[in-house]
Amino acid sequence: MSKAKFESVFPRISEELVQLLRDEGLPQDAVQWFSDSLQYNCVGGKLNRGLSVVDTYQLLTGKKELDDEEYYRLALLGWLIELLQAFFLVSDDIMDESKTRRGQPCWYLKPKVGMIAINDAFMLESGIYILLKKHFRQEKYYIDLVELFHDISFKTELGQLVDLLTAPEDEVDLNRFSLDKHSFIVRYKTAYYSFYLPVVLAMYVAGITNPKDLQQAMDVLIPLGEYFQVQDDYLDNFGDPEFIGKIGTDIQDNKCSWLVNKALQKATPEQRQILEDNYGVKDKSKELVIKKLYDDMKIEQDYLDYEEEVVGDIKKKIEQVDESRGFKKEVLNAFLAKIYKRQK
Amino acid sequence: MSKAKFESVFPRISEELVQLLRDEGLPQDAVQWFSDSLQYNCVGGKLNRGLSVVDTYQLLTGKKELDDEEYYRLALLGWLIELLQAFFLVSDDIMDESKTRRGQPCWYLKPKVGMIAINDAFMLESGIYILLKKHFRQEKYYIDLVELFHDISFKTELGQLVDLLTAPEDEVDLNRFSLDKHSFIVRYKTAYYSFYLPVVLAMYVAGITNPKDLQQAMDVLIPLGEYFQVQDDYLDNFGDPEFIGKIGTDIQDNKCSWLVNKALQKATPEQRQILEDNYGVKDKSKELVIKKLYDDMKIEQDYLDYEEEVVGDIKKKIEQVDESRGFKKEVLNAFLAKIYKRQK
Repeated sequence: MSKAKFESVFPRISEELVQLLRDEGLPQDAVQWFSDSLQYNCVGGKLNRGLSVVDTYQLLTGKKELDDEEYYRLALLGWLIELLQAFFLVSDDIMDESKTRRGQPCWYLKPKVGMIAINDAFMLESGIYILLKKHFRQEKYYIDLVELFHDISFKTELGQLVDLLTAPEDEVDLNRFSLDKHSFIVRYKTAYYSFYLPVVLAMYVAGITNPKDLQQAMDVLIPLGEYFQVQDDYLDNFGDPEFIGKIGTDIQDNKCSWLVNKALQKATPEQRQILEDNYGVKDKSKELVIKKLYDDMKIEQDYLDYEEEVVGDIKKKIEQVDESRGFKKEVLNAFLAKIYKRQK
Repeated sequence: MSKAKFESVFPRISEELVQLLRDEGLPQDAVQWFSDSLQYNCVGGKLNRGLSVVDTYQLLTGKKELDDEEYYRLALLGWLIELLQAFFLVSDDIMDESKTRRGQPCWYLKPKVGMIAINDAFMLESGIYILLKKHFRQEKYYIDLVELFHDISFKTELGQLVDLLTAPEDEVDLNRFSLDKHSFIVRYKTAYYSFYLPVVLAMYVAGITNPKDLQQAMDVLIPLGEYFQVQDDYLDNFGDPEFIGKIGTDIQDNKCSWLVNKALQKATPEQRQILEDNYGVKDKSKELVIKKLYDDMKIEQDYLDYEEEVVGDIKKKIEQVDESRGFKKEVLNAFLAKIYKRQK
């Protein structure tokens, strides 16, 4: 239900951006193009990031209901994360040569789109700052929001760069892999924008902006985001495709997954050789060799041990959170509860 | 000489950005990658945009010499335009499937780069806001500079979108062309960031920020930028390749050039048919048919008439500039003098 409500404000957001193009005098075909790009690239996902801005704000303020205008402002910030994600996904799909996204062809593969998708990605990014200016310019924390989006965009780009250099799909070199590099990539590429950003946006609007509180949020949400991504890597191989809705491809795609990094860390010379000979190749039988190796090496148990340890650490950190300035453990516990032992 | 001085500060700017990556703990190969991208994509051009920030500031303030720190701040703003341009050129070259840029292979065509260039473009853009924050955060006009870069980036993206939809290289449809559309494309895609942006940046630092003065700058610099681009289109066909340093390809590339739009405007049905049959085809003999048609239709004289008219209008507007709050006609005349009757 909260997802339906959140989705219901998107047409207004889209219309505000599209109207800008009309005001600038763009030809009708260009206006329609941008409108189509917004719809295709922002809608149809799980919207977890956007939704959690609203949820976090309600937890922080204790408001069970928000009036329409307040709801719109919070949902708008949530949609700005969805715009940021659309900017990254449209371009990541080109860089990764992906074929589908959310069950339909990637935007750049649509007829007539092609590399125009790059400029479309830029326009999705620009939409963030246009809407921030329109709706938050009068707030004293306006510049903080702008800098937050800049900073987190840059961090995400750093994560993407390291990922692209570490695991190019066509050039397998397991020497580049390590658990440390995996940690860097998932924190920078995913955790900042998916976990830290929604909470901090809600904190600014709720007026909880002491640097100590921002730090408390970061100290939990970045490890939590890392854990989430390790889970993703785990589910890619050990999850139930029926639940997840897709079949894992990380092994064949030469992904710098937590699983291969764990295997590399504890491999005997013979096991390492098996990894070298079979990882990252578009060959089903080689994929099965790796899957069997993971089983022989008990990588699933390593994951379960990792999970217990990291969740224990996170719970301890949440326990120690200082709520005296208005920040709440509940916000962090809500995130953890959604993630712990998830099956999809 | 002023170009050499301007270039001499680039290593410091590049180093500030590269150091950030080291501070974030990126692996050495990623640090080197970003450093290489900055060098390859920002250096080697004419640097007119960046240089004109410094020049305009000196004209506005009457300072013949700037001390080192003041020079650095102005040159830095100039280099931010060069970063913005690098962001656009790296990605435009992918979208246009260009082969060379500034006499060397386009960045995306370098070995190992490929589509990573898209993320590199994002990082060039992010560099703008990182450096703005570092060097201008304490200024009361800091947010204005940030918004200015956002606004002009968006305008440039709008121009690029209309250009891509109007003149795709592989689908000729002259019905999409018009002088009005040409005017929109060149104003949005080029004039704002190349002409308006450098002057306004200098105005902010010089403290000349009355909205009336920003408007006076825009009223001259946007038509001037449009004229500059029309000249570019003219030189592509009528210029001396020895002077320009390249051979024009607009006709074969199906470019929405001022020349073809002028020809379309005044073509008889027979001439229109010649345009339809020969424009935008990768065929030297068809290109020559178009060149002969331009000559028969006296398009060069149309250009010369256009030039006299638009330069007359611009001069009149400059004459009427109100200098009472510190803005100076001299700034605008300096731009016009560099452009009028240029041969390359």
